Amino acid sequence: MKDPTDLKLFIPGPTHVRRRILEAQSVPMIGHRSPFMKQLLADVLPGVRSAFGTEGSVVVLSSSSTGSMEAVSRSVVRPGKRALHLVNGNFSDLWRKLSLAVGLDVLVAELPWGQGWHEANVAEALAQHGPVDAVFVAHCETSTGALSDIAGVARAVRAGCPEALVCVDVTSSAAGTEIDFDARDLDVAVGGVQKAWALPAALALAAVSPRALARMAEVPHRGYTNDLASALEYQDNKGMTSTTPAIPVIQALRVQLGDIEAAGGFAARFDTHRAMQSQVLEWAAARGFGVLARDGFRSPTVTSIDAKGRFKMEDLVAGYREAGYFITGGYGKTKPTHWRIGHMGDHTPTCVGEVLALTDTILAAIGCAAAPAGA
Amino acid sequence: MKDPTDLKLFIPGPTHVRRRILEAQSVPMIGHRSPFMKQLLADVLPGVRSAFGTEGSVVVLSSSSTGSMEAVSRSVVRPGKRALHLVNGNFSDLWRKLSLAVGLDVLVAELPWGQGWHEANVAEALAQHGPVDAVFVAHCETSTGALSDIAGVARAVRAGCPEALVCVDVTSSAAGTEIDFDARDLDVAVGGVQKAWALPAALALAAVSPRALARMAEVPHRGYTNDLASALEYQDNKGMTSTTPAIPVIQALRVQLGDIEAAGGFAARFDTHRAMQSQVLEWAAARGFGVLARDGFRSPTVTSIDAKGRFKMEDLVAGYREAGYFITGGYGKTKPTHWRIGHMGDHTPTCVGEVLALTDTILAAIGCAAAPAGA
Repeated sequence: MKDPTDLKLFIPGPTHVRRRILEAQSVPMIGHRSPFMKQLLADVLPGVRSAFGTEGSVVVLSSSSTGSMEAVSRSVVRPGKRALHLVNGNFSDLWRKLSLAVGLDVLVAELPWGQGWHEANVAEALAQHGPVDAVFVAHCETSTGALSDIAGVARAVRAGCPEALVCVDVTSSAAGTEIDFDARDLDVAVGGVQKAWALPAALALAAVSPRALARMAEVPHRGYTNDLASALEYQDNKGMTSTTPAIPVIQALRVQLGDIEAAGGFAARFDTHRAMQSQVLEWAAARGFGVLARDGFRSPTVTSIDAKGRFKMEDLVAGYREAGYFITGGYGKTKPTHWRIGHMGDHTPTCVGEVLALTDTILAAIGCAAAPAGA
Repeated sequence: MKDPTDLKLFIPGPTHVRRRILEAQSVPMIGHRSPFMKQLLADVLPGVRSAFGTEGSVVVLSSSSTGSMEAVSRSVVRPGKRALHLVNGNFSDLWRKLSLAVGLDVLVAELPWGQGWHEANVAEALAQHGPVDAVFVAHCETSTGALSDIAGVARAVRAGCPEALVCVDVTSSAAGTEIDFDARDLDVAVGGVQKAWALPAALALAAVSPRALARMAEVPHRGYTNDLASALEYQDNKGMTSTTPAIPVIQALRVQLGDIEAAGGFAARFDTHRAMQSQVLEWAAARGFGVLARDGFRSPTVTSIDAKGRFKMEDLVAGYREAGYFITGGYGKTKPTHWRIGHMGDHTPTCVGEVLALTDTILAAIGCAAAPAGA
């Protein structure tokens, strides 16, 4: 097997982590109950607030993205009440499964892969399914590259079901595009850091509204370790995490936040993501390929490109691999027909340009015409 | 604030992590759904089995120790059945709290701090509390340094309550002393890697018996992310972890396992821990200090020393800090009266000797006589 560390990751997470960030993990351990831990946490929280667009509560969890989503499933629906899952791909469906696994009474509204949620279709889903305690939605659905309009989702929920909390999976959107937690009136936004944050895995970040915190107090048996309310209470009262955290990843987060700030802050980072997205979309359009996510619902962090059956996907993936890139096919049922480019994190327009040029070379080599007739 | 990375950790976790191990984390990310991840996991599981003394199922969880203990609380007690927690210090009591937090019906048997559990006192506790579905015990109680006789605990449970599973927290014993999971007939042994494993935090390891796996199938709403049965099923079927794992720490684990093997394997590592323990116990005895854990129940990984009121604990802790060591007082209620030396992980008899010599110097400087009259 080729040394995996020779491959540059362009999958939609975990994404490429810069050497400087990898090395930031190698700081010797500090006591997690020492003043140094308090300082480390105090150093990172303002930047996390900035990424989420909130002046409210944010919390650091030592958890996978999935774990942080499961924590939300356990904490926002009162006994006897129901949850509505908005499903439009694999990861929004995974959240539904997590809610089932923790015993929730789950309702589902589903869109075809590639579509996104917005005010009107959420209003319709709520009208159909009746009152619920929480609505769960993926901001960027990593399996398709569809970005839902979470501002519209929140408006529909406030209008149609005022007691419902708006819970958003931001795993592949946070640090890559605006969450605008406060302005969009969200209740929980949660996700891991191995995607647009461009950090090693094993840490998740969350923003939590006062409304959500009040709700959590009404939900029993949430547990302790991975519970957002317990973690926040500990963080607020003692300035530390409630259990031994992923200290090396928090050290890496501190360095990353400094670098993001030095490069113009999150606004500049979001612009860079949109620039990388435009490169990919323009490249695909110019060559007559399709894009899985519908226009108006395309994420700046990942694009799933429809090969239109013009070549065998395994040949492209093998070509990437041969050239030192790890880029995979579509997710699940779209695996043989699509491929996904994760243009997120610390990737740049320059390296996206390199990947697209490489793609042209591979496509020519495997006998795929540069563009179909008429394109 | 002094640079925390200048301090050598001798607290009972997180413990000192060697530079080579810290740097092992800095390998570029690999895809967690790639063959490289399968290889990484396949590389580490045999060593984990060896540490636990089992030929059965072991699982890698991206979780704090506390999280892994909570996962056990969620998974081994059937609805309507009860759990018995054997408490003899802060962390065994924490496990009781975790079981309460997930909604279990909890019974408690308690020993004074410093005592350990063994066949007779567990038999007595079971006779008093009646049938339960699981018995929870800490192997090494980190707050006191007491090591319970888990072989005796298991014998008492088999004899007194055959339907009960024996669940052991091995957070501060694993990789520092024998777990002997198979020989001692345990059901679940679980804990993090930031103590005697001498690895960065954010990973937990568990051994699970077939009996425990069968039980988990009868327990609903265990969740998914941090659930031992789901993690094992995914690991067995796909050779990978069920969610994005703490890849850097698993990379570090692989290097650490290789180094342990090269240094004579776990048997040699356990001997080294006993040698470090003997140094500390002999030093304390020669100076007339006491030891919190009772004779016969003392852990090879951590010793809590009773200062017998001969000096102010904060003066000793400050002296250590001044000399570049992070060594703290006792835990909780023993904080002002005791201090704990974590002689675990990659510490050696040589560096324990240095710490003890330093302690003599500090004690002299703060006016504590080398030994009381008659010692």
